[in-house]
Amino acid sequence: MAELSETTGIPVPTIKYYMREGLVSPGRPTGRNQADYGERHVRRLRLVRALVEYGGLSISVIRDLMAQIDNPRLEEFDLLGAAQKTVTQQREARPGPTRDEAERRLRDLLVRRGWRIGPDDPAYRTAVGVLATLEEVGYHDMIDEVDAYADAAEKAAEADLRLLGPDVSDRERAVEIVVVGTSVGDTLIAALRRLAQASISERMYTRPAR
Amino acid sequence: MAELSETTGIPVPTIKYYMREGLVSPGRPTGRNQADYGERHVRRLRLVRALVEYGGLSISVIRDLMAQIDNPRLEEFDLLGAAQKTVTQQREARPGPTRDEAERRLRDLLVRRGWRIGPDDPAYRTAVGVLATLEEVGYHDMIDEVDAYADAAEKAAEADLRLLGPDVSDRERAVEIVVVGTSVGDTLIAALRRLAQASISERMYTRPAR
Repeated sequence: MAELSETTGIPVPTIKYYMREGLVSPGRPTGRNQADYGERHVRRLRLVRALVEYGGLSISVIRDLMAQIDNPRLEEFDLLGAAQKTVTQQREARPGPTRDEAERRLRDLLVRRGWRIGPDDPAYRTAVGVLATLEEVGYHDMIDEVDAYADAAEKAAEADLRLLGPDVSDRERAVEIVVVGTSVGDTLIAALRRLAQASISERMYTRPAR
Repeated sequence: MAELSETTGIPVPTIKYYMREGLVSPGRPTGRNQADYGERHVRRLRLVRALVEYGGLSISVIRDLMAQIDNPRLEEFDLLGAAQKTVTQQREARPGPTRDEAERRLRDLLVRRGWRIGPDDPAYRTAVGVLATLEEVGYHDMIDEVDAYADAAEKAAEADLRLLGPDVSDRERAVEIVVVGTSVGDTLIAALRRLAQASISERMYTRPAR
């Protein structure tokens, strides 16, 4: 285990904790106080650390995700969906006519774009919640721009899927890319959006120098 | 004040608290326990509430922002920049060669896109931090996609600036749109990105039905 710690840079007590919590399987015992660890342990430990540090996920969420990686009956698409949902905040709108109207708008958008997503998806619930909030505060212009925001989101998602690539048979790698790429990507896109805003608004709003 | 509370839907104790904290100016006294409030008070109260509820801003940050709105010597561009910075998280990268390389990459990107942003901008610092993190975890493919993410961010920023419009002489309205639009917009874009991911990955990774 000392070697495993050296290879991964993860302290021994942390490795023991991950094993106790069932995130990483124990090694093959080779003696009273010795066990054999393989490349599989190294990769799994690195994945767990990436999910903790960059995905901001709890141990119980990671345990569920590891069980899904190890379940060969779960198809790739469902595994990726499960991974994506772990880094998706769900914000519910208050029931009422405003929410119903927001949901109708989102469904229209999904139809226009050919996105087939069910109403149980946490990102669907959150999008409805945001549209309902914008309606409540009278930001109708922003609701009218939802197709432009969807264009932007689709461009980002296309880049996301290029990262993942067509072959997702390496399930640990695929889950890591989805979870880390989605969570870190949110921060990257938010920062770039502000840089673009600042650049465009400088052109629009500064008076020419005299 | 009871009327002001009724018009805005904000409870009297909350209005008193905002006045005590200097976010809203007191009314013109008309009697021992009476004061006159105008349209200006109604608008300011609604703005403060929007910034608290949707911008997630602290009272002291809102107080600074209100002082900037009320400072006629501050140019529109600087006011909008100040508003935008209040909803921008700043994450610093650890100093070292990885950060220097990340900063070089960001500067190249800014030059390619013609975005003129200084290194003191919090969004600049955060973008450097994200690129350095991606380098540390070996996500070079994601760094190579930074232009695609910048395309997406620019599309969103163009929509943002359409909402604001060319006339920003109504400074309260402009600040509200920047702060609320930017913070709520992050959540909207994140939700739409996940919906687009799910839709594209369904096409890529599900086996045809037998």
